[in-house]
Amino acid sequence: MSLLVIGSLALDTIETPFGKAERTLGGSATFISTSASYFTSPVRLVGIVGYDFPKEEVEFLKSKNIDVSGLEISETQKTFHWHGKYDFDLNTRESLVTELNAFETFDPVISEKFRDSEYVCLGNLHPALQKKVIAQIAQPKLVMCDTMNFWIEGALNDLLEILKHVNLLVINDSEARELTKEFNLVIAARKIMKMGPQILIIKKGEHGALLFTSDSIFSAPAYPLEEVFDPTGAGDTFAGGLMGWIAKTKDLSTDNLKLAVIYGSTMASLAVEKFSLDGIRHLSNEQIMKRFSEFKKLTFFKEESL
Amino acid sequence: MSLLVIGSLALDTIETPFGKAERTLGGSATFISTSASYFTSPVRLVGIVGYDFPKEEVEFLKSKNIDVSGLEISETQKTFHWHGKYDFDLNTRESLVTELNAFETFDPVISEKFRDSEYVCLGNLHPALQKKVIAQIAQPKLVMCDTMNFWIEGALNDLLEILKHVNLLVINDSEARELTKEFNLVIAARKIMKMGPQILIIKKGEHGALLFTSDSIFSAPAYPLEEVFDPTGAGDTFAGGLMGWIAKTKDLSTDNLKLAVIYGSTMASLAVEKFSLDGIRHLSNEQIMKRFSEFKKLTFFKEESL
Repeated sequence: MSLLVIGSLALDTIETPFGKAERTLGGSATFISTSASYFTSPVRLVGIVGYDFPKEEVEFLKSKNIDVSGLEISETQKTFHWHGKYDFDLNTRESLVTELNAFETFDPVISEKFRDSEYVCLGNLHPALQKKVIAQIAQPKLVMCDTMNFWIEGALNDLLEILKHVNLLVINDSEARELTKEFNLVIAARKIMKMGPQILIIKKGEHGALLFTSDSIFSAPAYPLEEVFDPTGAGDTFAGGLMGWIAKTKDLSTDNLKLAVIYGSTMASLAVEKFSLDGIRHLSNEQIMKRFSEFKKLTFFKEESL
Repeated sequence: MSLLVIGSLALDTIETPFGKAERTLGGSATFISTSASYFTSPVRLVGIVGYDFPKEEVEFLKSKNIDVSGLEISETQKTFHWHGKYDFDLNTRESLVTELNAFETFDPVISEKFRDSEYVCLGNLHPALQKKVIAQIAQPKLVMCDTMNFWIEGALNDLLEILKHVNLLVINDSEARELTKEFNLVIAARKIMKMGPQILIIKKGEHGALLFTSDSIFSAPAYPLEEVFDPTGAGDTFAGGLMGWIAKTKDLSTDNLKLAVIYGSTMASLAVEKFSLDGIRHLSNEQIMKRFSEFKKLTFFKEESL
């Protein structure tokens, strides 16, 4: 049941057409671990924050049964701060401020206690750092990795190197196309799977996600929401639900991976309904299962032949 | 079981990254009626062609049990000709030539024999012509309508007028956004349904389609193909499968409409695998059901609670 999550913890300032939130909890590791905490516990968190990181947010993470013993707190630097502004359609965003602060010197050392982690979730980080993490895990059963266009453009060799050690890559459609120089996502997927990952998930934002395994393709819809308040962290929340379900069930069959994708989508749909992490701070199993059942209504159809 | 299809019949010249086809069978009514013919028969076709329309293509339509008694053949004009070129990603296309020819004077008169049609499929036409058709049908059980950005921009009042008489509108995502000035498709859908249609389908190309009824949303994926040869007619083929299934089953329940959307998607996925109409000229029920079952694998997931 041991899930290790590594990534950024941040204080985000977010502007959307619906409002503005200042220095709210953000970062990939925050969303991933909170989302995963509904499925498996304790989630092992590795990351770094600054001296200004609110104590109550550390308490919040603990309250979700997240093991924060791997959370480094810099005494000299502030927490990673990102200020982003979303366009009216919420599909494009502009980074107004990116202050790495403490995160710039992040050099993840995995404690003895965490080295036996079976499931590893590498949030979006420089691939060289991601590689360093993998090297410290004794016998991972599944390594999941997220990345972004920034690394495809600026650290391609490191990225290609880490992909050889990754079992499950989560990437968005534009990144998949950029990485492979292929527009067709099915062809892009095959090319990426030749780079290493046996399992690939291509996220398509409002159009859902595609899961590719060696012998199947699965298409999960996004939940059609009338009001998306803040898409920040949607992809990380997806990854958290996905990996949380996998760590809970320890089942890597295609059927179970499909279900993991639906749980990831379920969590992401709940996250974007509120600002920052608020959509997934306090959820009951009933709330999660209610949304999960909406996904069934959204995709299931009766079977009747011609 | 009586399905009436009205729309264009054309000779298309198509260029895609995979090749070129000259003066092949095209037009909305052609794709719709051929696709529907696998579900219900005879399909009643109303349209106009020129003196140059190949006799063997009329014979082909007859061979699909399509009633061509409503097909007018102009003795003085040529057949509607469209020449289009698709971009490398097949998502954008340029119209190089559009010669309306006989189609320019099309004034649909529905024969006595066809006026009792229960299901009516209005292919993409000027909404004033679509209205003229509806007025001639005695007691339609369901009127489906397709339209395009050209009419939203150039004949909006006529379009809004016809929408009051339409039960099922099929439109693509950019058109839905243009018609409502709303980016969010769920909000756009609600606005469109206030204009008249009780059922709305928003097509999203490679991302599938959304079905909206008064009380539900259904998300159908597009079949992920490695090779899309020619997207021409995909939307019309979808509409044909959809309406063919509805006319066959005469069941307007939400559950059956979902199934109709999947049959539409099934037919569309078969159409785009070959040039022009070739993908759906000669299909067996087995071929259709094989692809249909792929849609199940693509979207169904097991149910297991948290």
